[in-house]
Amino acid sequence: MQRALSLAKRGLYTTRPNPAVGCVLVKDGKVIGEGFHPKAGQPHAEVFALRAAGDLAVGATAYVTLEPCSHFGRTPPCANALIAAQVSRVVMATLDANPQVAGQGLARLEAAGIATRVGVCEAEARALNVGFLQTMAGQRPYVRLKVAASLDGRTAMSSGESKWITGSAARLDVQHYRAMSGAVITGIGTVLADDPLLNVRQVSDGTPLETIPQPLRVVIDRHQRMPSNAQILKDPDSVLMVTLNPEESKLKDSAECWQYQSLALLLDELKQKKQIHDVLVEAGATLSGAFIAAGLVDELIVYLAPTLLGSLARPMFDLPFLHMSEQIRWQTVSVTPVGDDLKWVLRSV
Amino acid sequence: MQRALSLAKRGLYTTRPNPAVGCVLVKDGKVIGEGFHPKAGQPHAEVFALRAAGDLAVGATAYVTLEPCSHFGRTPPCANALIAAQVSRVVMATLDANPQVAGQGLARLEAAGIATRVGVCEAEARALNVGFLQTMAGQRPYVRLKVAASLDGRTAMSSGESKWITGSAARLDVQHYRAMSGAVITGIGTVLADDPLLNVRQVSDGTPLETIPQPLRVVIDRHQRMPSNAQILKDPDSVLMVTLNPEESKLKDSAECWQYQSLALLLDELKQKKQIHDVLVEAGATLSGAFIAAGLVDELIVYLAPTLLGSLARPMFDLPFLHMSEQIRWQTVSVTPVGDDLKWVLRSV
Repeated sequence: MQRALSLAKRGLYTTRPNPAVGCVLVKDGKVIGEGFHPKAGQPHAEVFALRAAGDLAVGATAYVTLEPCSHFGRTPPCANALIAAQVSRVVMATLDANPQVAGQGLARLEAAGIATRVGVCEAEARALNVGFLQTMAGQRPYVRLKVAASLDGRTAMSSGESKWITGSAARLDVQHYRAMSGAVITGIGTVLADDPLLNVRQVSDGTPLETIPQPLRVVIDRHQRMPSNAQILKDPDSVLMVTLNPEESKLKDSAECWQYQSLALLLDELKQKKQIHDVLVEAGATLSGAFIAAGLVDELIVYLAPTLLGSLARPMFDLPFLHMSEQIRWQTVSVTPVGDDLKWVLRSV
Repeated sequence: MQRALSLAKRGLYTTRPNPAVGCVLVKDGKVIGEGFHPKAGQPHAEVFALRAAGDLAVGATAYVTLEPCSHFGRTPPCANALIAAQVSRVVMATLDANPQVAGQGLARLEAAGIATRVGVCEAEARALNVGFLQTMAGQRPYVRLKVAASLDGRTAMSSGESKWITGSAARLDVQHYRAMSGAVITGIGTVLADDPLLNVRQVSDGTPLETIPQPLRVVIDRHQRMPSNAQILKDPDSVLMVTLNPEESKLKDSAECWQYQSLALLLDELKQKKQIHDVLVEAGATLSGAFIAAGLVDELIVYLAPTLLGSLARPMFDLPFLHMSEQIRWQTVSVTPVGDDLKWVLRSV
């Protein structure tokens, strides 16, 4: 299953809106076929593994990181393919949450007399497709919020000067999160201050850059302050403007414009209209604070640099709490050094 | 030498103003005696080890974490004792920095025909007595500054409410630093807000509490705002008040009062008058910021809790920087989980 998970990861940046899945076929203690799902519309992991195994698949055990699908989508159901190939046993890391699959792939395999097991390396498998599983279960997209700050919790000087607090290793690490996200959300303040591209320019795992779909770059700009020469507009096809009056937007002919209602509704629309499961928020203290205050952040990714920017510098998040009882506690997932900086990942509790 | 270092650590809280030293005597691959210096006025590590070994010490190798002393203090020189015992070889982790010893212990051993080696586990041995070695080398005491904050760099709500940000494990960990410090410095603001004792109440390494000398608790109170019922005054013998007009202090009959001139001069006086090598600063944003701004902090000990206190809460340090060029960079020594919190130790660069 570890091997299947490694294979699945190779599709992490490219399978959207599908989940990343890996499959390994084993017979007599030997791997006889393996595969991963590379991209929506292309065959699923199981199909690649079965093709590689050929007739050897008869009587083999299939290790799959996600329950094989049971429905006809752009490709025929993988449960059927495994049955047709006469594998004798299917080990799944986790069940699918897609209502078109959830338990039905399993049931179909069992009905065909195939031995099954669910729950091997389940936590790791679920983490791999956390956004997909969350939206398929009927919830909003999985929201990661990234912030880079000094050890005293400051993200920029009062003037806005902020280049660079964290080092190049931390900045490269952020690219990983962009590459696995269907959308990157920012605020107009960040666009005006930093003029960022917010696209994927480099990943460290070897996935060819041209195979990675760029995330939708979402700019919340309620009062239409977006300058027409902003860098982010150089590729308007992957830009979504969110504004109070989309009808009046100067950008409505070049970029998609949606009406701003609330952050929660925006997330819901991104899921419904764009099949987005994973959202990365890369914004300033105001918008980041608003996402947190609204309880919409599932995961905080904090890069802390070993430096002090002082008490006049900008806060990490605008959260106007007066009492300890208002504090928002998180649960540490991991702490790792990244270059000279520290990467602290936390989950909401 | 690792064993000798472990032994030395047993005196870490109790040997002040002497260094913590351990010694192991080895002959024919067997430990024939060991010891550590427990307390000023009591025998040094080498003496305990030699006593344990008796006549077996002839021809043995001595592993000592610090160069054996060569001068008559409260006890006779250990270099002489090693020579008299006819050990054949002395391995030292590091040379002493005490001008009365520095290299002279080594020279005396070599003059007596004893084989020597210096520099085994040197970094670890120097870390053990970093304050002692620094002051003996003519510099100011080694200053550690401890701060407990939220992940967004806040130490208290704007009202002052701060109990508790970090957990009990982090608070216990602080006791270790108090126990190894000759002085704990705080400001009157912290006394007025938290009414702390700043003494050693519990250590986790098993050293009996009654053997640990309490650190001198130094309160910087320039304008004599100290309330007479402050907890810290319950044991006035170990309190030092630092004020602009010590002559006018209401506390001058109960506690020692010094004149405040500058933080640097205070550290110098603590070394000269009190033989203090290690200072722990446990103060609020103002005094902590002043120590940092003056370049007087050697080591930052930052406990970060996985919580957000928000942008109105108090800053970690009052440092009124306007430009990135004013930032103060540090070097990470270690990052370790302590309970649910994170402990980040940094050294000045």
